Amino acid sequence: MERTEKTLYLDDLAVGQRFETGSYAVSAAQIKAFAAQFDPQPFHLDDAAARATIFAGLAASGWHTAAITMRLQVESGLPLANGWLGAGGSVEWPNPTRPGDVLHVAGEIVDIHPSKSRPDRGIVTVRSETLNQDEKIVQITTAKLVVFRRPVP
Amino acid sequence: MERTEKTLYLDDLAVGQRFETGSYAVSAAQIKAFAAQFDPQPFHLDDAAARATIFAGLAASGWHTAAITMRLQVESGLPLANGWLGAGGSVEWPNPTRPGDVLHVAGEIVDIHPSKSRPDRGIVTVRSETLNQDEKIVQITTAKLVVFRRPVP
Repeated sequence: MERTEKTLYLDDLAVGQRFETGSYAVSAAQIKAFAAQFDPQPFHLDDAAARATIFAGLAASGWHTAAITMRLQVESGLPLANGWLGAGGSVEWPNPTRPGDVLHVAGEIVDIHPSKSRPDRGIVTVRSETLNQDEKIVQITTAKLVVFRRPVP
Repeated sequence: MERTEKTLYLDDLAVGQRFETGSYAVSAAQIKAFAAQFDPQPFHLDDAAARATIFAGLAASGWHTAAITMRLQVESGLPLANGWLGAGGSVEWPNPTRPGDVLHVAGEIVDIHPSKSRPDRGIVTVRSETLNQDEKIVQITTAKLVVFRRPVP
């Protein structure tokens, strides 16, 4: 998915503004590859071993779900002029991402806080849910983004 | 780094318990590869383009720093018997991870909350800092982990 234009500055955003992203299909091979690199635990690496754990089957690392969520937001979330610049945030994983899942993200701007010390920017809080094909929530994200005002010509 | 034994159950943990992980070297190639897959924005992908941004040079995706933090904790953090099972948490990125950085994690158990409904487990809150070779903080993490009690024989 190519983003053709990035147009939104702080001035263009409002609390309550919503967005929905495209989708991302997750395979068992991707789950295992991410886990081998960043979260090498049996329940993320091996189908048989995963069955004996609390996950009762192969599950993606929560950080893999977080990374996919970022990809979806960067590519087809709000087209922020300066990009998705995260200062931090929180994540919850109510359900695991499974092989074969097709994820998308639905988000909403819940707070806009113009900076007092730096008048060219503000902090925008976005709450989003990452959902699978059955509309089960695999991640709830609250992200604090640095967003710039439209430059004065 | 091979973890030879995983021994810690909920019964073995105490608030104030600290740990320090091994280290992880981050290259420009790794930063760009992670970004291409999960956070394809100029400041994570391309040195020249990154210089013109708020980062003033190539910087890792915050989610890359988070994934590396997980890897360090899984491999050389507290040796939890059932693994690092995250229910969620929060992250802040006070400074970017840069090419050539060597990261490690210093953490502490800040809360232990035995489950009332499920007496075989509890939620353990770990606060950690991910530091580079200059002891600059690149991530502050508060993670909520599901930790099991030692099984009754």
